[in-house]
Amino acid sequence: MKRTSLSELGEFGLIQHLSEKFVNKQSSTLKGIGDDAAVLDYGGKLIVLTTDLLIEGIHYDLRYTPLKHLGYKAVTVNLSDVYAMNAVPKQITVSLGISSKFYLEAIDEIYEGIRIACEAYGVDLVGGDTSTIKNGSILSITALGETDAESVVYRHTANSGDLLCVSGDLGAAYAGLQLLEREEHLFTADPSMTPVLKGYEYIVQRQLRPEARKDIILMLRDLDIKPTAMIDISDGLSSEIIHIGTKSGKGAKLYENKIPIADETRSFATELGIDALTYALNGGEDYELLFTIKQTDFPKLKNNPDISVIGHITEMSEEFLLITQDGTPVRLRAQGWKNFSK
Amino acid sequence: MKRTSLSELGEFGLIQHLSEKFVNKQSSTLKGIGDDAAVLDYGGKLIVLTTDLLIEGIHYDLRYTPLKHLGYKAVTVNLSDVYAMNAVPKQITVSLGISSKFYLEAIDEIYEGIRIACEAYGVDLVGGDTSTIKNGSILSITALGETDAESVVYRHTANSGDLLCVSGDLGAAYAGLQLLEREEHLFTADPSMTPVLKGYEYIVQRQLRPEARKDIILMLRDLDIKPTAMIDISDGLSSEIIHIGTKSGKGAKLYENKIPIADETRSFATELGIDALTYALNGGEDYELLFTIKQTDFPKLKNNPDISVIGHITEMSEEFLLITQDGTPVRLRAQGWKNFSK
Repeated sequence: MKRTSLSELGEFGLIQHLSEKFVNKQSSTLKGIGDDAAVLDYGGKLIVLTTDLLIEGIHYDLRYTPLKHLGYKAVTVNLSDVYAMNAVPKQITVSLGISSKFYLEAIDEIYEGIRIACEAYGVDLVGGDTSTIKNGSILSITALGETDAESVVYRHTANSGDLLCVSGDLGAAYAGLQLLEREEHLFTADPSMTPVLKGYEYIVQRQLRPEARKDIILMLRDLDIKPTAMIDISDGLSSEIIHIGTKSGKGAKLYENKIPIADETRSFATELGIDALTYALNGGEDYELLFTIKQTDFPKLKNNPDISVIGHITEMSEEFLLITQDGTPVRLRAQGWKNFSK
Repeated sequence: MKRTSLSELGEFGLIQHLSEKFVNKQSSTLKGIGDDAAVLDYGGKLIVLTTDLLIEGIHYDLRYTPLKHLGYKAVTVNLSDVYAMNAVPKQITVSLGISSKFYLEAIDEIYEGIRIACEAYGVDLVGGDTSTIKNGSILSITALGETDAESVVYRHTANSGDLLCVSGDLGAAYAGLQLLEREEHLFTADPSMTPVLKGYEYIVQRQLRPEARKDIILMLRDLDIKPTAMIDISDGLSSEIIHIGTKSGKGAKLYENKIPIADETRSFATELGIDALTYALNGGEDYELLFTIKQTDFPKLKNNPDISVIGHITEMSEEFLLITQDGTPVRLRAQGWKNFSK
């Protein structure tokens, strides 16, 4: 029997490989695999459906992640996918697998974080499953939201000339992760030391307690802007631009000096001797929204402090270029999570 | 900090404890936690939503479970919950966590089982997630189905005098599990032996490759019978009768000599010196449907080879009695999975 290791494919390759064998046959399935969420039509509002699997030791580290934050983040990263369809999340289910080393009080902390997120975003917890596992913990969350045929926004519908926009700032979550891991290593080596997070509260919060950009979706409605394509930034800006471009059969041009990066992210990158741009392009876990708009919508957004116009969609299929500060074009590459690669 | 171990609560106790802190606030949530599936109203057909977490070493053992069967079963156990709401499943999502010891060809086997189940039951795979985990494997599946306000059947709506009915036969899946575990132990002790499954094909198949009772739902529609309450049998007949009775504020009387048990299940129980009734009452994983009907519907079902009328709902709140062969009443107890108890 042939044996192909998963590291040969990577995560995107595996998803591509597995999904090729499935064909949608139900008339209620408008969109299956291949976007932030599936889109279903049961005759009323359109339903969007998305699910995420979070695994201890892969997606979170309980040595520096407070349990309440874990519960909160597990919800918001799912809701981010719902908003990325221009939909409003309404319900979630939560399945929890935990080893017997966890006490009820620890589980209560996780669910308290889940409850706070449900309150903050207006969603109901309507189901789930619980089980023991041998080691560690896992969380599997599914979110449902509603939209309609006029509002739903996919990844594959960007047009050349559309402006590439991004909410908030990028790279902070990954900078926060590197900081937490550094302090954890120092603490492990010398338990008498105190982890130094002062001055880096913002990047730590972006890593441990990210928000989903509900406010951006509401603002775009108020401004009467419907994005032509949208995706949430979970794997890094490069990867998401390539997703939108490839699915739309287009390319993109992106300007380094337009990419929003917080001062704190830059400070930490400097401290480590790393280019903060790397965090923004490949860091992931920002949960900001990347979307494209028609040029005619530009005046409505141009002075908005929460939105940066960072480039535009081009006709050149699958050519993704970053124009650096000094005007040099550099090819973008998707890095993604690659959690199968090592 | 207080520390309460999970074994003090058990699974049902944990679910009860966690769900008490959540209140449904969305108008689209008709039913949240507490039935086989949540019921949601997005303005068209009603949506039912259910999710299950399957964990290697807890819910399945890869030493005797073929990967294709694992994929198939993971789907059917979820669809069973959809049918138990008198709904038709339409879409599933599948999340898979696997250690790097799994090769692509093994994952393909799991997904081939998933694909075959999707074909057999007419559902689309519309999303999911994949990740590495440190040890073993886990599967998290969510199913969506459609029904309407006239058809949906809950657990809490049984009336006293209603007849308790069950599809198929009970206890075979648990007998199959005991057989597989026995042969596995013998094989581990002496690898030169060949596991003996001959004569027990039925109970093995009921354990490894259960079906969801789509046919029963269709038959009930054809017979113009709408159950007054329904649940699928995943934790054993006792536990499910108690669920229906307790949620409906009623009791139930059940007759031992009416409980359907296959000859093969009885033979294997005899071989082990166990009462086959124990398998039927507490074994679990049968994925048959337990439902209640009005007495006026009895003539439509009375000679049906696939349905057994096993007792009736009584007015006595929370009194659940098994009437044995010799007429002695015995109190039923819920056993359930209890996977937190050890």
